[in-house]
Amino acid sequence: MKEQPLILVTNDDGITAPGIRALIEVMNELGDVVVVAPDSPQSGMGHAVTINSTLYLDLIQIDDGPQVEYKSNGTPVDCVKLGISEVLYRKPDLVVSGINHGSNSSINVIYSGTMSAAVEGGIEGISSIGFSLLDYKWDADFSAAKYFAKQIAGNILNNGMPKGVVLNVNIPALPLNEIKGIKVARQANAKWNETFDRRENPHGRKYYWLSGEFVNNDKGEDTDEFALANAYVSVVPIQYDMTAYAVIDQLKNLEK
Amino acid sequence: MKEQPLILVTNDDGITAPGIRALIEVMNELGDVVVVAPDSPQSGMGHAVTINSTLYLDLIQIDDGPQVEYKSNGTPVDCVKLGISEVLYRKPDLVVSGINHGSNSSINVIYSGTMSAAVEGGIEGISSIGFSLLDYKWDADFSAAKYFAKQIAGNILNNGMPKGVVLNVNIPALPLNEIKGIKVARQANAKWNETFDRRENPHGRKYYWLSGEFVNNDKGEDTDEFALANAYVSVVPIQYDMTAYAVIDQLKNLEK
Repeated sequence: MKEQPLILVTNDDGITAPGIRALIEVMNELGDVVVVAPDSPQSGMGHAVTINSTLYLDLIQIDDGPQVEYKSNGTPVDCVKLGISEVLYRKPDLVVSGINHGSNSSINVIYSGTMSAAVEGGIEGISSIGFSLLDYKWDADFSAAKYFAKQIAGNILNNGMPKGVVLNVNIPALPLNEIKGIKVARQANAKWNETFDRRENPHGRKYYWLSGEFVNNDKGEDTDEFALANAYVSVVPIQYDMTAYAVIDQLKNLEK
Repeated sequence: MKEQPLILVTNDDGITAPGIRALIEVMNELGDVVVVAPDSPQSGMGHAVTINSTLYLDLIQIDDGPQVEYKSNGTPVDCVKLGISEVLYRKPDLVVSGINHGSNSSINVIYSGTMSAAVEGGIEGISSIGFSLLDYKWDADFSAAKYFAKQIAGNILNNGMPKGVVLNVNIPALPLNEIKGIKVARQANAKWNETFDRRENPHGRKYYWLSGEFVNNDKGEDTDEFALANAYVSVVPIQYDMTAYAVIDQLKNLEK
């Protein structure tokens, strides 16, 4: 009998978030699931790691599924490192992260704890996928996201992943029957125009809340934003070799 | 008379670190300097942003240089956002981050708060450079790093930066007269092999310290690691479009 695939699941919204519970449910249908996830929300943590403080890792049972679960006070990237080094008996076949409550399309990949966890899996040489639903609400409907997470993870378990790459999967906030399919796309050239909401605390000290407006000036029809706006699931292959090869020659004047 | 360049300086070791003081000193020779930097060390913060707590921003004077300085409780990326949105009267000509106490070569770029601050500047459409010295000690000798930071920043102020790119500059821990020059390089395919140092606290609870060994299996002579090992300053152009264009076609089977 063939051994079941071993799947490590994490996220950045915390281990009790409905998004990760949905992901665990469908991964249980594909293999043996081990969860190592943050004990509290870690959104916007990017690729942060915990160097200057101590990490805890505690076995926990949250529902009666067959998965084995640990919570940690670390970041999503810490959770992947802990899972691989301290929890799993062998290298997993797949690392999945999410399902994030909210989009990680286009430039959001840079700020995303969900995607950083997937990138960390990729660096370790493991097929890795981050899943995000375009609905940040706690009680969002994950049924379409579950369908596509299972389909895409199953495909990757069967066919493998190109080397040096992880997948950034975003799912429109639509019922399953209104989603037209999957598009493999490039990262749209979009950004946040920051605004800070400036306030004064009861003691007269100024403070700020980070806020902002998402602006997509990329009119390409091959982007993740275009796919999502047209009711497709977007899949962007992400590489962690960040070298801009195309400009190396152009910069050679710096060597003089 | 031509207006002086406006330069935003930040780092991830905190505003009092000798590395940022060295960088401020040489940037004062190139333009008008505004510093917005973390009030405490933020190493390993990656591209983290502060969403769920409040940000403070306080004018501070640390030495008697001509620069204007602010400290913040935010991450390096928060500092760049605050600097551009709340402090500067116009878009700066250059964002510089560092000089980091310790290497940010090869895969370290992914975990680095220093480089994430530079990437944030790039996303805002500003020429941006992260500088790191291969010596993590607080009392490291920054004299060679200062020389190259001034030379490279001066070159970029004169010649501009390719679009969609920021520079990751690493400087060997050598006296200036032992450094052979500058090499424009690619990110070496190296990684950390994590080990966790497992301990028990006085109350019997297990905890972990993240630790690890840096392993470079990339034998290429065009990498940042090769340049640094051969006494060159490495300059890697980094892009924040993380799309792995080369594999998009290969993944089209996911659309079926």
